[in-house]
Amino acid sequence: MRPFPMSLTSLEHLITALRCLPGVGPKSAQRMAYHLLQHDRPGAARLAASLASALETLRHCERCNSFAVEAICPRCASTRRDASLLCVVETPVDLLRVEETLSYSGLYYVLMGRLSPLDGMGPRELGLEKLLARALDGVVREVILATNYTNEGEATAHYLAQQLAARGLKISRLARGVPVGGELEFVDSGTLAQAFRERRTL
Amino acid sequence: MRPFPMSLTSLEHLITALRCLPGVGPKSAQRMAYHLLQHDRPGAARLAASLASALETLRHCERCNSFAVEAICPRCASTRRDASLLCVVETPVDLLRVEETLSYSGLYYVLMGRLSPLDGMGPRELGLEKLLARALDGVVREVILATNYTNEGEATAHYLAQQLAARGLKISRLARGVPVGGELEFVDSGTLAQAFRERRTL
Repeated sequence: MRPFPMSLTSLEHLITALRCLPGVGPKSAQRMAYHLLQHDRPGAARLAASLASALETLRHCERCNSFAVEAICPRCASTRRDASLLCVVETPVDLLRVEETLSYSGLYYVLMGRLSPLDGMGPRELGLEKLLARALDGVVREVILATNYTNEGEATAHYLAQQLAARGLKISRLARGVPVGGELEFVDSGTLAQAFRERRTL
Repeated sequence: MRPFPMSLTSLEHLITALRCLPGVGPKSAQRMAYHLLQHDRPGAARLAASLASALETLRHCERCNSFAVEAICPRCASTRRDASLLCVVETPVDLLRVEETLSYSGLYYVLMGRLSPLDGMGPRELGLEKLLARALDGVVREVILATNYTNEGEATAHYLAQQLAARGLKISRLARGVPVGGELEFVDSGTLAQAFRERRTL
């Protein structure tokens, strides 16, 4: 279709490479490539360098399974956090969201995914033995399942709850309901039904 | 806000660096970083390498001002294109869009921007002398102004038309109107008004 593909080699390589980013299709990739080359070459150089450096230095923390430079990340190594609480999240981004609330001072375990049989993600692929070992260290008293309220997140929480309850741990799940500042008019009916079912006595 | 920033150094560098991409805010950058590190390390490595390689090898074609590895890109060097037609576009992506129509066989000039006094982009910053020199090579007969139909694109076209018409060149602008397959009901009124004003006699 393009008359002279050979001239565009390194440009087209870049456009193709940008498509590894989530949510970036062919047109976004073109826009990104031209933006970087025309308007932000220093930014592009920093991006190339930090990608290479992150790939080289980051690995999984042995305790929380999130990304860290050290074998055990400073958050897990801290003595100022409540080691009797273990919050299980799907991704490191979820962990950051919880941290940003400034309302949780326990530890974390990051699944790096969710049970999703259709995508070939079973308990083994997700490494749930590692989580079980972590939760059964004798210090953890309560496991807070903070997986998403999607079908897959719910299934993951259900499976984990079964596995962990059999071993005598207290299991909890985040509350569902009307968002803070939310108006009933704009809350979807599933959430509203749940808020009724789980209503609190004042 | 984050309790242990020092552990996240190379990760946070990567997240910051990803924000140089157009349309990528702090949350998208986090998602992208975790996606690359967890699910697509080969893709991330390819991206780092192709960024570095593109930065090193690509420059502006001396004739069309688009990106090229050579001093004069193969499209401009081709003898199979109609050198009497010069299509002026704002960006290399616009050039690709025109090429994809397979309906234009002339040459191009890429402005790499548009007149935008508020952003400090005047005729000098945009390098319009280079375009004027290109258009006055004696071979070009018609300059097709294919800048966007935004305020800034229109102003750019207006300015270029003035400059080029004074030198005796034929100037044209892309037709405006109802899109192919478009329904009047869903066309905005400005476009519809324009389509009336520029209606064709059958």
